[in-house]
Amino acid sequence: MFSYQRGQFDLVIHNGLVVVGSDVMPPSTYIGIKGGVIEQISATPLTGKKIIDAEGGYIMPGGIDSHVHLSQKNTPAGDTFESGTRSAPPGGTTTVIPFAIQNSKEDFDLVSAVEEYHTVAKNSSYCDYGFHVIISNPNDEILKTQLPLLAQQHGITSVKVYTTYPRYRLSDEQVLEILLSNRKLGITTMIHAENADIIDFIGKKLEEKKLTDPFYHSESRPKVAEDEATYRVISLSKMIDVPILIVHMSSETALATVRDAQNNLVPIFAETCPQYLFLTADYLKHQCSHHVHKDDPFEGAKYICSPPLRQSQAELDGVWKAIQNGTVTVFSSDHAPTIYDHPLGKKAGLVNGIPHYKKVPNGLPGIETRMPLLFCKGVETGRITAQRYVELCCSNPAKLYGLDKKGTIAVGKDADFVIWYPKGKMAPFVLSNSMLHHGIDYSPFEGVEFTNWPRYTILRGCVVWDRDNGGLMASKSTGQYVKRTGSSMPGPMGKLSYIFE
Amino acid sequence: MFSYQRGQFDLVIHNGLVVVGSDVMPPSTYIGIKGGVIEQISATPLTGKKIIDAEGGYIMPGGIDSHVHLSQKNTPAGDTFESGTRSAPPGGTTTVIPFAIQNSKEDFDLVSAVEEYHTVAKNSSYCDYGFHVIISNPNDEILKTQLPLLAQQHGITSVKVYTTYPRYRLSDEQVLEILLSNRKLGITTMIHAENADIIDFIGKKLEEKKLTDPFYHSESRPKVAEDEATYRVISLSKMIDVPILIVHMSSETALATVRDAQNNLVPIFAETCPQYLFLTADYLKHQCSHHVHKDDPFEGAKYICSPPLRQSQAELDGVWKAIQNGTVTVFSSDHAPTIYDHPLGKKAGLVNGIPHYKKVPNGLPGIETRMPLLFCKGVETGRITAQRYVELCCSNPAKLYGLDKKGTIAVGKDADFVIWYPKGKMAPFVLSNSMLHHGIDYSPFEGVEFTNWPRYTILRGCVVWDRDNGGLMASKSTGQYVKRTGSSMPGPMGKLSYIFE
Amino acid sequence: MFSYQRGQFDLVIHNGLVVVGSDVMPPSTYIGIKGGVIEQISATPLTGKKIIDAEGGYIMPGGIDSHVHLSQKNTPAGDTFESGTRSAPPGGTTTVIPFAIQNSKEDFDLVSAVEEYHTVAKNSSYCDYGFHVIISNPNDEILKTQLPLLAQQHGITSVKVYTTYPRYRLSDEQVLEILLSNRKLGITTMIHAENADIIDFIGKKLEEKKLTDPFYHSESRPKVAEDEATYRVISLSKMIDVPILIVHMSSETALATVRDAQNNLVPIFAETCPQYLFLTADYLKHQCSHHVHKDDPFEGAKYICSPPLRQSQAELDGVWKAIQNGTVTVFSSDHAPTIYDHPLGKKAGLVNGIPHYKKVPNGLPGIETRMPLLFCKGVETGRITAQRYVELCCSNPAKLYGLDKKGTIAVGKDADFVIWYPKGKMAPFVLSNSMLHHGIDYSPFEGVEFTNWPRYTILRGCVVWDRDNGGLMASKSTGQYVKRTGSSMPGPMGKLSYIFE
Amino acid sequence: MFSYQRGQFDLVIHNGLVVVGSDVMPPSTYIGIKGGVIEQISATPLTGKKIIDAEGGYIMPGGIDSHVHLSQKNTPAGDTFESGTRSAPPGGTTTVIPFAIQNSKEDFDLVSAVEEYHTVAKNSSYCDYGFHVIISNPNDEILKTQLPLLAQQHGITSVKVYTTYPRYRLSDEQVLEILLSNRKLGITTMIHAENADIIDFIGKKLEEKKLTDPFYHSESRPKVAEDEATYRVISLSKMIDVPILIVHMSSETALATVRDAQNNLVPIFAETCPQYLFLTADYLKHQCSHHVHKDDPFEGAKYICSPPLRQSQAELDGVWKAIQNGTVTVFSSDHAPTIYDHPLGKKAGLVNGIPHYKKVPNGLPGIETRMPLLFCKGVETGRITAQRYVELCCSNPAKLYGLDKKGTIAVGKDADFVIWYPKGKMAPFVLSNSMLHHGIDYSPFEGVEFTNWPRYTILRGCVVWDRDNGGLMASKSTGQYVKRTGSSMPGPMGKLSYIFE
Repeated sequence: MFSYQRGQFDLVIHNGLVVVGSDVMPPSTYIGIKGGVIEQISATPLTGKKIIDAEGGYIMPGGIDSHVHLSQKNTPAGDTFESGTRSAPPGGTTTVIPFAIQNSKEDFDLVSAVEEYHTVAKNSSYCDYGFHVIISNPNDEILKTQLPLLAQQHGITSVKVYTTYPRYRLSDEQVLEILLSNRKLGITTMIHAENADIIDFIGKKLEEKKLTDPFYHSESRPKVAEDEATYRVISLSKMIDVPILIVHMSSETALATVRDAQNNLVPIFAETCPQYLFLTADYLKHQCSHHVHKDDPFEGAKYICSPPLRQSQAELDGVWKAIQNGTVTVFSSDHAPTIYDHPLGKKAGLVNGIPHYKKVPNGLPGIETRMPLLFCKGVETGRITAQRYVELCCSNPAKLYGLDKKGTIAVGKDADFVIWYPKGKMAPFVLSNSMLHHGIDYSPFEGVEFTNWPRYTILRGCVVWDRDNGGLMASKSTGQYVKRTGSSMPGPMGKLSYIFE
Repeated sequence: MFSYQRGQFDLVIHNGLVVVGSDVMPPSTYIGIKGGVIEQISATPLTGKKIIDAEGGYIMPGGIDSHVHLSQKNTPAGDTFESGTRSAPPGGTTTVIPFAIQNSKEDFDLVSAVEEYHTVAKNSSYCDYGFHVIISNPNDEILKTQLPLLAQQHGITSVKVYTTYPRYRLSDEQVLEILLSNRKLGITTMIHAENADIIDFIGKKLEEKKLTDPFYHSESRPKVAEDEATYRVISLSKMIDVPILIVHMSSETALATVRDAQNNLVPIFAETCPQYLFLTADYLKHQCSHHVHKDDPFEGAKYICSPPLRQSQAELDGVWKAIQNGTVTVFSSDHAPTIYDHPLGKKAGLVNGIPHYKKVPNGLPGIETRMPLLFCKGVETGRITAQRYVELCCSNPAKLYGLDKKGTIAVGKDADFVIWYPKGKMAPFVLSNSMLHHGIDYSPFEGVEFTNWPRYTILRGCVVWDRDNGGLMASKSTGQYVKRTGSSMPGPMGKLSYIFE
Repeated sequence: MFSYQRGQFDLVIHNGLVVVGSDVMPPSTYIGIKGGVIEQISATPLTGKKIIDAEGGYIMPGGIDSHVHLSQKNTPAGDTFESGTRSAPPGGTTTVIPFAIQNSKEDFDLVSAVEEYHTVAKNSSYCDYGFHVIISNPNDEILKTQLPLLAQQHGITSVKVYTTYPRYRLSDEQVLEILLSNRKLGITTMIHAENADIIDFIGKKLEEKKLTDPFYHSESRPKVAEDEATYRVISLSKMIDVPILIVHMSSETALATVRDAQNNLVPIFAETCPQYLFLTADYLKHQCSHHVHKDDPFEGAKYICSPPLRQSQAELDGVWKAIQNGTVTVFSSDHAPTIYDHPLGKKAGLVNGIPHYKKVPNGLPGIETRMPLLFCKGVETGRITAQRYVELCCSNPAKLYGLDKKGTIAVGKDADFVIWYPKGKMAPFVLSNSMLHHGIDYSPFEGVEFTNWPRYTILRGCVVWDRDNGGLMASKSTGQYVKRTGSSMPGPMGKLSYIFE
Repeated sequence: MFSYQRGQFDLVIHNGLVVVGSDVMPPSTYIGIKGGVIEQISATPLTGKKIIDAEGGYIMPGGIDSHVHLSQKNTPAGDTFESGTRSAPPGGTTTVIPFAIQNSKEDFDLVSAVEEYHTVAKNSSYCDYGFHVIISNPNDEILKTQLPLLAQQHGITSVKVYTTYPRYRLSDEQVLEILLSNRKLGITTMIHAENADIIDFIGKKLEEKKLTDPFYHSESRPKVAEDEATYRVISLSKMIDVPILIVHMSSETALATVRDAQNNLVPIFAETCPQYLFLTADYLKHQCSHHVHKDDPFEGAKYICSPPLRQSQAELDGVWKAIQNGTVTVFSSDHAPTIYDHPLGKKAGLVNGIPHYKKVPNGLPGIETRMPLLFCKGVETGRITAQRYVELCCSNPAKLYGLDKKGTIAVGKDADFVIWYPKGKMAPFVLSNSMLHHGIDYSPFEGVEFTNWPRYTILRGCVVWDRDNGGLMASKSTGQYVKRTGSSMPGPMGKLSYIFE
């Protein structure tokens, strides 16, 4: 609830359960905001030009979605910066970090690629944003010139590498070179860990047998491919003694390997995504038990992503366990969607009526649904505490990626918030894609029942989403680029080996 | 540094790294205190009658020592409430929780025992305090009448039970009865886990061989006795699906068993103490390699505690790992000392010149050294983050034991703080017992070098310790009794079984 | 196939796959038997008075059932020595080891109890036999006088102890005393490991709720009770560094604990039984899914044994895994049956029409079905090799219990054999109790389909079972008492601790 | 002791402890040999032309060294077939399996390479022998034509592949192709598992720093490289569900990964070698603590092998544990030596006085010392049983590689034996290289004290080594080529996936 009055602050929020990673403050807490920043937190009432009464609901830091793909040249039928970020505030997200990518593997001018991406993003974002870069060619130019420049001048302190995909795949030796360089530069490394050879091998066998329906996408990327690559990249990390984040983990076994490393103080971080908590490979089938794709046998293509959806509910439960027991560090959407019904979209996988999963662009939409899904199915069910939720969705991404002004509620921080309805106040509803704000013609979570949803989203003191009064309040010039510093999560266990100095 | 001025607040603290369990706020943060409570936290300067400039040092919540023994009838040569709590503020501790115990196993009037203990404590405490109770006779009177009364009227929401010691030892069935009752009442259960039969068995064999020097105390309580009892009490906890805290854990194996349970979402909490991070059984020997007890072969008795000090540095490293990787929930002193040179003290173990470890009162002093030890050897060395330190020493004890106004820095909370010197500002010094404020004639940590120490300790807005100007500022009427609510740590995994409803 | 001729040997067996624990010899092998002993094994034909042509089937050592209960005073409606051993040869078993028990806990004259048992057994056994003793009162008389006498004079080198049952339950300290004594005497210790307190606790709660149908027997003895006691007795074994055998293990978790110990070279041996491979707790229910006990709701009582049948097929698979991966050392029947329809039998649990699981005598019949079950479902399905089968059913029991003349096929050993039909030669059949030779009115394995069965069983050179021609050929005077030596399985890891010398 | 007489058999052996993988038969056993084959085993005396009285010592199957390199073109200063096998009988080994390798990676005519190797071996071997082949180019010609021919016509049923070395290294996809092909053909796969990228990466860094002394060989191939590759090849094995043998394992961590797979019934086999039980990387150093290479700072080169010797005694203990607990399947020498003082030998690593570990030919001598080392330090110390010794050195190699007539003592098998001195009968001696029979100028085990040694070695009924009378009795035409069948060790867990049919 809103009210306006004369007062000391631009905005005052009160009467909610204020959550940070370790604590929940009672509704008697007042938060005073000025100039887009949290200026005071007070046990006595504050006055402001605008007052938000949270009515007992949770007040949390604005969400950070640290793994999204927007306006990428290689996904022509995907979300643009504009259409993608448009769905951020309605889903409680105030900051996203998409990927700036080079034009080609031979293009070593990362700085230009980043500058180009700045142009794309500027005045096209409904929320704040930083950039990761992807490295597929770690030569001296990249490691010794471009990355230091990007870190210092652009505040880009994270890079992503792949163990799979022909375009991006690096050898173990290349990964080691990057890890060593990143350790020296203080850059965070994100790794997509799947064994490419296993995937290629199965892919050929399936092709020989003409087994290319969407479902075979999941058969072609078995859990063991992820388990293997996870163990391998952890070994590479140990060699250099440098933290890594393994992105979009989908396998209970692989997550147990991560846990084991963490228990032994190896600085391994894990990311997972909503699809690995809620969806199984069954959705890829024509005759799936969840919702038979009666009229369109190719509709399973909507659920193609990598790593793929796993076989059983037991696997999903395993990923949940890793959410609950602390193994997972950050919870992201891996928003990388493609329009289904579009010549360059998912339907490109259907050539002359013959489906081939390899021709279907990978990736699902998810920016808007990420936070409500985990809130409803995690916090409201009691599976995780509100603090753990904030850790996963807000604080840990901020710490890992050096978003110093984001990710928690404290004086001096950006006034980014998501405020939820008090439990039980909102009538449950079933999601349909028309409720969402992205540019994609479907959501994998259509049909899911939600018991809560962001009521207000606030970005640097401005209400950018008011669900009950006006909906989306941000414009495409609302978002600002954010320079980042280094990670404040645990670092190397010891000194750099004399071999690598 | 202090200054006085007219101002809005009773006290303002600023220019330090303000630490809570999840975050560190920058020195630009101002904390305004009024009426003993944190009223405002602000990014803009606050004015106060008194100003503390932390000069860049850490500002942390006041320490909570949730496991201490004071004025216990069964340790006549131990610390009294007065002498024990006198050492709390100088060590950064603002709240302690000692144990109210019954007169005998046949005395079922726990309420009277608590009331008697109130009388002992009143006007004799230099810091705030709550009480645990110990249960050695779980009959209906205790479980159905006394405990509900204590929880509701006295705010006593935790009980301790033992698997060892003739006086306290409970059968597994008794532990189950208490766990079930505690689950229903929302009471936290602390368990001392060592296998009494193993200890008795070895004790008899040692006695037959006349091996009774202090060192044999550690031989008589081997790691396997702790490992076994730890696995057992976790099994009992699983039966009822109720959280337990295993106190003063000293074994890497047992801590790994706890970790395994935690990874599987079983709500097991672990406590450890400074002695298990810093001291080995070698100290119990006459001719020890650390500091030969030249003049007094019985001096090893000073190091008798249970569980005993373990054999090797490798064991200490194992406990450190559990501190670092999240297994340990709370870090307490288990302050349970006895004067060494006193007829009823440790020297009681020397009868006609013949030493017998069984006659030596168990327990070490440690309230004052607990926080400096972990700060210097944990935070300043980089082994743990400042946030993890606060979690272990302040926040988790507050959550586990329902100290709702304590344990973190947030508006509305009690203004309890410990403020450290900026790193490198204090000259390192070697501890001698004369520097300490307790009533005991030795410290097991004499000889340890410290690189920092609490500079200020503040209790409900009052400076109770100012190391550079006046030292101890509290009096024995400073401390107040604190009623507690239930734990806010993770609870049962599911509904109570139909068998136990 | 049989033939008679003049020849060098009393009996020659040939043309089968001769199996020992490590090897399978080809059908060209001839085994020559004289005086009840294997005298020659030859690659060239031997001549004998009697020739058995195994026609390509397996020739294995005679089975040893090292865990059976016969003519026990405390089970008046159970199998006698005569009726129990009568079922041994038809099931391929040539040696059994039942338990001699004292008249009461106060009776310290074990030697007399054993002598009395000799009287019962003499001329009443269809197969060879040794005795274990049970210890429920480990005082000096028992440990220092009786056990050495029994070992030296009677060749009794194994004792069984219990952690459960009011009559037998020992404290951990008593178990330690026995383990230490057994280490010094070279006696093998068998332990029934279930936590009695957990069982008592649940039993009382069930009783309060009047939940006493046979099914609640399994609820009253949950897996966690076995897991806990298993970890505990392994801890006790470690204390003394002495081997133990944990009998009738039914829990995957407990078996994993054993495996972990074995991997670390702790000498822990495990036994399991057919019921834990094939039956779930569902059989205890009136309306079970396997075979509705339509006419008799109390029939679940037939399946009451301890540890109880477990909840799910997944648990059975876990026990199978331990059979396959080497964790399980010996496979026994724990034959301890009671007639169902008998005033002192299982029906004693039904008082005035009200069932109470606690009043039902525990235990199942199983001597005759033990070996065929594991052969058909293990060897013939490919789950285990024939060598592993021999190890489990014959060689390991012989080694563990010091049956020096039994358990393998080698010259000088007793000529005890079981010979199977060649695979596929026998028509599969469904078991009914009428096919069996014991004195019990049911079998828990009625309804199971068998694809093979012992064709011949040979004891000291005599055919005691010929399925196709005459059936049971032994008489009740066939069996002989066997003195045993010490275990030849791996022993202590090191020297006895100075504390226990 | 020998004696000659008229008799039924060519040779009779008696009065020893006859050991097979599962059992030890008593000295009363007589073994009768005719035509090179064990014809009878008897409990009554046999007569023979020649009698060997083992005087109570162990009689074991002849040793099988299933991993040796002889007359390999790529090691010009190595052992030839003649010089290498000359050391087999004196060390108790009666069969070796060296590697036939192609002329180059482009040479697809494996059959010719094998035929050429036949020529080299014929009339040049003092013991029996089979061949493995190495595959470094798995194309259709190799997999579909050559390997089936080799299996059917040459009895070559095993191939070795590498994950490391530029010349041999295969991609994961190539390994998968070979595993699938081998599963279909019933061929055993041996894998050298070290991560080549890690090794290359470190190698370059060491080179940049000019750290190329022999010791840096061990630094360049860290344990983590073996751990990673071990996990990886197990993952590949799981993909196809096919057994693999990981050769020369040197890391406790990697062996624990193998154990974990074995516990879950994944058919993973492990090999280790004497060097990983007895030697640490310290030997590679100039100033090593074991035996300072005073006069020759390059002498550490003698100890260069891959995987390298590990850092500490704790690592060796870890490998011992895997020998003891059953993880290790076969114990081989990996005999792959090079003369030290030879222009093409180890000294080739010293160019103009500058050492470079990469230029030193890898590999150690070990055929002759393999069995005595494990016998003296394993069996005689009580670390392993005699049966486990036979399993590791004789039976398991025979089963895994399809040596149907070898590896155990049973009628119909080749009469291959090694007979040891009764314990304590032989005077302990310290090994010097002059006592050995190979063509190499050093042994890494010089200086080790031996308490036993093969007294007689017998190959197909002929005494080929009589330590006390004549020494080596074999000639270079004694050995015969042995065709092999498929493995009889546990195979795939289930049916081949529909994807790979």
